[in-house]
Amino acid sequence: MDERAVTGWWRTSLVRIEPGEIALRGYPIEQLIGAVTFPQTIWLLLKGELPSREQAALLEAALVAAVDHGPQAPSIAAARMAATCGLGLNNAVATGVNLLGDVHGGAGQQAMAMYEEIRSSELPLADAVRDYRSRHRYLPGFGHRFHPRDPRRDPLLGLVRAAVADGTVGGEYLAVAEEIERQLGPVPMNIDGATAVIYAELGFPPELGRGLFVLSRSVGILAHAWEEKQSGTRIKGPLPRPLLPTYTGPALRDL
Amino acid sequence: MDERAVTGWWRTSLVRIEPGEIALRGYPIEQLIGAVTFPQTIWLLLKGELPSREQAALLEAALVAAVDHGPQAPSIAAARMAATCGLGLNNAVATGVNLLGDVHGGAGQQAMAMYEEIRSSELPLADAVRDYRSRHRYLPGFGHRFHPRDPRRDPLLGLVRAAVADGTVGGEYLAVAEEIERQLGPVPMNIDGATAVIYAELGFPPELGRGLFVLSRSVGILAHAWEEKQSGTRIKGPLPRPLLPTYTGPALRDL
Amino acid sequence: MDERAVTGWWRTSLVRIEPGEIALRGYPIEQLIGAVTFPQTIWLLLKGELPSREQAALLEAALVAAVDHGPQAPSIAAARMAATCGLGLNNAVATGVNLLGDVHGGAGQQAMAMYEEIRSSELPLADAVRDYRSRHRYLPGFGHRFHPRDPRRDPLLGLVRAAVADGTVGGEYLAVAEEIERQLGPVPMNIDGATAVIYAELGFPPELGRGLFVLSRSVGILAHAWEEKQSGTRIKGPLPRPLLPTYTGPALRDL
Amino acid sequence: MDERAVTGWWRTSLVRIEPGEIALRGYPIEQLIGAVTFPQTIWLLLKGELPSREQAALLEAALVAAVDHGPQAPSIAAARMAATCGLGLNNAVATGVNLLGDVHGGAGQQAMAMYEEIRSSELPLADAVRDYRSRHRYLPGFGHRFHPRDPRRDPLLGLVRAAVADGTVGGEYLAVAEEIERQLGPVPMNIDGATAVIYAELGFPPELGRGLFVLSRSVGILAHAWEEKQSGTRIKGPLPRPLLPTYTGPALRDL
Repeated sequence: MDERAVTGWWRTSLVRIEPGEIALRGYPIEQLIGAVTFPQTIWLLLKGELPSREQAALLEAALVAAVDHGPQAPSIAAARMAATCGLGLNNAVATGVNLLGDVHGGAGQQAMAMYEEIRSSELPLADAVRDYRSRHRYLPGFGHRFHPRDPRRDPLLGLVRAAVADGTVGGEYLAVAEEIERQLGPVPMNIDGATAVIYAELGFPPELGRGLFVLSRSVGILAHAWEEKQSGTRIKGPLPRPLLPTYTGPALRDL
Repeated sequence: MDERAVTGWWRTSLVRIEPGEIALRGYPIEQLIGAVTFPQTIWLLLKGELPSREQAALLEAALVAAVDHGPQAPSIAAARMAATCGLGLNNAVATGVNLLGDVHGGAGQQAMAMYEEIRSSELPLADAVRDYRSRHRYLPGFGHRFHPRDPRRDPLLGLVRAAVADGTVGGEYLAVAEEIERQLGPVPMNIDGATAVIYAELGFPPELGRGLFVLSRSVGILAHAWEEKQSGTRIKGPLPRPLLPTYTGPALRDL
Repeated sequence: MDERAVTGWWRTSLVRIEPGEIALRGYPIEQLIGAVTFPQTIWLLLKGELPSREQAALLEAALVAAVDHGPQAPSIAAARMAATCGLGLNNAVATGVNLLGDVHGGAGQQAMAMYEEIRSSELPLADAVRDYRSRHRYLPGFGHRFHPRDPRRDPLLGLVRAAVADGTVGGEYLAVAEEIERQLGPVPMNIDGATAVIYAELGFPPELGRGLFVLSRSVGILAHAWEEKQSGTRIKGPLPRPLLPTYTGPALRDL
Repeated sequence: MDERAVTGWWRTSLVRIEPGEIALRGYPIEQLIGAVTFPQTIWLLLKGELPSREQAALLEAALVAAVDHGPQAPSIAAARMAATCGLGLNNAVATGVNLLGDVHGGAGQQAMAMYEEIRSSELPLADAVRDYRSRHRYLPGFGHRFHPRDPRRDPLLGLVRAAVADGTVGGEYLAVAEEIERQLGPVPMNIDGATAVIYAELGFPPELGRGLFVLSRSVGILAHAWEEKQSGTRIKGPLPRPLLPTYTGPALRDL
């Protein structure tokens, strides 16, 4: 087996590294530093080209919107507990990010897949939504178990509408989401549904919807882990002492 | 035990959540979306107040600089392998972030602690550096096992110098790092040493140096995990088949 | 909200804890220590009752069989790389275990689900297998990309046959697996297929097939992480220096 | 670079793998399956040789003793929360194991290091303990914040004393631990201190003390994750609704 077969086992189009040189998607890192924003860099690495200023602004708004939703979220609580167990902040953040799975962090991804399925239907939009609803009881990205109306919905949709108006994005996914909302009546779009509109309008595939949420929520996870670490608590359990979990198993018995 | 004791076990100054309301450090989320940048939001959550535009620009440059250094880094390789094992992107990112430990991701944190120790010495700067060097063989943030000169050093230090010139930062940590570099001669500052200057100048404590690196490198980890996932490889090992690890243990023997 | 509602949010039938008392599934820990084996304890916690000596022996054989398959497995390689990044052994083991996902660690779980679907079919066994095969191209637990014949198959199936003969288990899942193997001809059962027979015969649900594999493979993951840690390597990448991953992206370009 | 340099980058003395062959530390896997116990296999992989029956029994007792301590432990709580977020059981177990860090899972490792330091002192034992205590305020492995007397202490120490009596182990570490306990008076040895005696007597290095605890506690972590998964709860936070964490940050303010 020759060397090329070995080095080719690990291949990437993201970064070119030579002694003294680093280039992201072809752009020398020294040209990028100070010239492009963090969201532009995220876009460049994930999609291969730099976004327009308007595209980057829309991505940035979605990243800002989802940074945190408090310690009642299991990802945040787990990261805070991790921070009290003698781990580095990297391990605490990893703990929180690990929990952003299909159920906790995957709703945006699922909403994007739903939007795409409806958008690519041959039925008229309202019929396509009705058809989808007839086949699915749960619509990801709509309704919130805590907020009657998610305060992040309006500003995000407002930015999308402006981006449609100035031609930054096409608006097809916004139309789908708004039609769903119209039919659902009192169950408005939540943060996952609204950021899914943005990510879909910007051309990201559904799986990256979860990936972008991970980047956004990592900020809150880090901040909470750090806050807990500063508190000095050690081995923090979910309940304050002396409260103990309820035991529901068999009575004491001998072996 | 009353309810306040229970809810007070979980407490945070980061986010205020009520039905229909989310506020980060007191600012309603609907005012932040579209108005502040992602790096400003990172700063707000970690430090409690919004940064000036100039402070945010310096933070942003450091976040951009460290996003990726290729699949030869174990954090990236592990995340790419994770992506081939049937995990969600959140689990793959968590796998990579988990590896940014004391040795792999902690150099920036250690450089910040070193700068601070030297800066707060009562000796003149050159003597303080000499004193530190006499007590430590390894200086974190200087030298690179691959790059003779790290291409991210110059643009980052250039931005710090400009920020000192316009009064955005004080320059004390820059002075320490430059004096170290002067004394070390042919061993220039690397990415960890240079971003440590920025994070220290901006008032972040050393531990958050690692935290900010985690946020930055998460972008590269995500992009690599996604690239690998798209390749369709399943259960990717470190070496291409048919290469196998070398066995160095005892010869075959019977029980 | 009263205290019972709070403590009841965390409830468990596994362990009863009072000051000075710990009981697993009702058995005081001081009676278990030295009296029951580790596999019996695993069974007790997962299923609620202690197994017979014969049941425990069959479980133990499956746990022994799957402890390790070398550093070419991504879970092992990732844990070894983690151990070189300055993490604790717990973080290194967590890294490896995290990778035992649907594709890498889930084959046993999938084989158990397949066995159960075929076993509960109303068709005669051979027809039920043919029917299943007509609907699925890939049969989990059969064939191995490296071993023409998995050396763990024969001893494991031998133990199952003995357990059927002495009445420890019923043999229905063994019959399904053997019929599949008979129809597949030159594609024999692998470790996942064979341990799936054992776990199914012992009454574990499919999801715990993955769980038990996790417990077994954790041993190899720990041993490899420890071996790598002792080697003194720091920040171990997948390829030896000076080999670098292949770059497949765009040529250098200016911003 | 020739092929040997590449394959030698990944080397192991743990397992020999060839097509159709797997051998752990030289022993063909087909000879081990059904012939050795799970704890013997753990010992073989970690130490290179098989233990005697008596050594394995002592290891087994320590592994059984530490499997679980309820959902109030952050590792267990985090794994249970993970199980409600749509992750696989492997990801949930990894989440819990990740939390067994210096503070939460490291006490046994620290106790082993303390025992070794005292044992290798040139002072008489009682003086060596007094000397150690004069230099350290906190003695790992002694005292328990919940149990006045840890119920796992007596049975574990009883087994060690029997193993000293029959010559299985030497008893030097037991003597150190008992002298510490004697001097501390009302602060008895806890599970970490008692298992540390066993692991040290059996010749394991301190770092593997944490490793063995990880293998033991993984059982409880898995069982709790599985119990929570069966409950059907989704996105389980630390507090029952409608309780919310307490907000301690700034009042609402405009941007």
